[in-house]
Amino acid sequence: MTNHEFYMDLALTNARAMKGQTDPNPLVGSVIVNDNRIVGVGTHLKAGEPHAEIHALRMAGELARGGTIYVTLEPCSHHGRTGPCAEAIVQAGIKKAVIATLDPNPVVSGSGVKILKDAGVEVITDVREKEARQMNEVFNKFIVEKKPFLTLKAGITLDGKVATHKLDSKWITSEEARVDVHHLRNENMGILVGINTVLEDNPALTTRIPNGRNPVRIVLDSTLKIPLDYQLVTDNEAETWIFTSRAHDGTKKKELERAGVRVFVTNRENTVDPHEVVERLGEEGISSVMIEGGGNIHASFLENQLIDKVVLYIAPKLVGGKDAPTFLEGTGVKLMKDAVELNDAAFIPVGKDLKYIGYPTYTD
Amino acid sequence: MTNHEFYMDLALTNARAMKGQTDPNPLVGSVIVNDNRIVGVGTHLKAGEPHAEIHALRMAGELARGGTIYVTLEPCSHHGRTGPCAEAIVQAGIKKAVIATLDPNPVVSGSGVKILKDAGVEVITDVREKEARQMNEVFNKFIVEKKPFLTLKAGITLDGKVATHKLDSKWITSEEARVDVHHLRNENMGILVGINTVLEDNPALTTRIPNGRNPVRIVLDSTLKIPLDYQLVTDNEAETWIFTSRAHDGTKKKELERAGVRVFVTNRENTVDPHEVVERLGEEGISSVMIEGGGNIHASFLENQLIDKVVLYIAPKLVGGKDAPTFLEGTGVKLMKDAVELNDAAFIPVGKDLKYIGYPTYTD
Repeated sequence: MTNHEFYMDLALTNARAMKGQTDPNPLVGSVIVNDNRIVGVGTHLKAGEPHAEIHALRMAGELARGGTIYVTLEPCSHHGRTGPCAEAIVQAGIKKAVIATLDPNPVVSGSGVKILKDAGVEVITDVREKEARQMNEVFNKFIVEKKPFLTLKAGITLDGKVATHKLDSKWITSEEARVDVHHLRNENMGILVGINTVLEDNPALTTRIPNGRNPVRIVLDSTLKIPLDYQLVTDNEAETWIFTSRAHDGTKKKELERAGVRVFVTNRENTVDPHEVVERLGEEGISSVMIEGGGNIHASFLENQLIDKVVLYIAPKLVGGKDAPTFLEGTGVKLMKDAVELNDAAFIPVGKDLKYIGYPTYTD
Repeated sequence: MTNHEFYMDLALTNARAMKGQTDPNPLVGSVIVNDNRIVGVGTHLKAGEPHAEIHALRMAGELARGGTIYVTLEPCSHHGRTGPCAEAIVQAGIKKAVIATLDPNPVVSGSGVKILKDAGVEVITDVREKEARQMNEVFNKFIVEKKPFLTLKAGITLDGKVATHKLDSKWITSEEARVDVHHLRNENMGILVGINTVLEDNPALTTRIPNGRNPVRIVLDSTLKIPLDYQLVTDNEAETWIFTSRAHDGTKKKELERAGVRVFVTNRENTVDPHEVVERLGEEGISSVMIEGGGNIHASFLENQLIDKVVLYIAPKLVGGKDAPTFLEGTGVKLMKDAVELNDAAFIPVGKDLKYIGYPTYTD
């Protein structure tokens, strides 16, 4: 680990600690070093309050002069509520700026660095770039594409199954993994499932942890099969949005709406196009969605290259069965070389299970 | 980590370093400590040569007196080629013995400890017990049951598949994982596959690493469908043993035998009982077998509670497909609660893949 990485890790740690309290702003952390001594630490606490660099510069005071600033995100160049941070850095007499990632927005990306360089500040970029990018992965996508960041989540056995051949699935994963899933729900603005998952389980899809926030519950149901007495319709625990096709039953739609459900009629005759769902969710301001099954929904979103991240909880058990469903059904690819590869894989033990995180790379 | 664990780890490291050169003896390591200083280190090098404790006692010399000996396996009590180690420990004046595992053979288990205790040596057991037991897992099973230790091995995608729905499987795992598999083959005395795997791939099932030893190639083929021009029959790279049923074709059997293949006719009319295969292999002196598929063979051995260890190479890729085969087919269990749990799970990155090791626990 270099010194640059050491200081950037501290900035990342402070940034991450604010998770959930900076929306709609990204997480940002900053550290100022002068003469091998940390003289300032800053983090962005809340939208409308100073950016991380400003806090760090204030703490450093006169000791910022001649120092090096570490920032997890390119300092801003716009006159917002706290003024352009890049200019504040120049005015404080900072000599060197080490930046993890450039601004994800292509319209402004690089303009903060330009201000710094034009003023004679030495700039180093891409230190802990991957970590800083992943920390704001939802923000980075939504600000650029206005579409939600989609996480495929499944709890599976070590032989890849999500249920036995008799469709029994209680429980695959450990209590610790199930709690972890509720934290994921808490972090996502939406949770999306197919109608078959609803019909099989009559799920609540709520966040069952203290002070948990419930995501909007999104169901793809091309013919409005959802029963009116199911939890998603009756429990009022969170919003329920149903995406249906033009071939839906108009009477059922009215009944669902009377029960408080929002029904989105999409453009296809008999099916629901996942691309259209993602666009409509973006328009509604939903920046992150966790997709919780079943296997055909997962396959459909993956085949359409819409999945941004995969989170699996792999339980150390074997059920077997040619007819036991897996988390990824559909037709699948024909050739192994056309499999969707996952990058930046990480695996973390959660209870007895293994949490596997990866990012699909689409090649065409 | 306690001091006991620290010294036992050193003994384990020295024991493991002899892997492959002690057969038919187990791996054993020993450390002697006196007054907080290591005064002796020993390891069993080769059958017929001194046991680990004797080497450690010789190195310690007079400094063994009053010291503590660490041994990964209970010191022997029998008068073999190197005499009972337990008595040598007593005679050297050792005050305390820390032992990882008792002797796996129930006939003699505990008798080494008894000699030590009767002579007034303090005995502590079960320090790093699991590690020491796993180190000799093949030996421990074979010496007691006279049956081979069975390892189920598969290379799978993250969605549990071993091929696409078109049965393409080249390649699932990384080059590094495939090399690792050849090391596994090198360590096992036998490699077992079903006839369908043979018919699909015409595999050689040899060990392709420098100085690799080839396992005996074992095929379950109830009607002797194996073509006479397949590699397993013609290449003479290693022995090929075929287990067939009473309903086999006698002429084909003679042709295979003429080609150098051993054909075992088992007792069932139309199928091959995996229990019988395991017993016959034990009688032939095969102490370890790796089972390399396909999914129905894996399921059959698992349902018969014959699998001792599972080794999976999980590739970070997704193929999808309701009809894509998984490594564990058959019927499978009905209820998730009846899934076979794996214990002592370990996961190790191998190239881009994850090597997952676990030990099935059978509950009835």
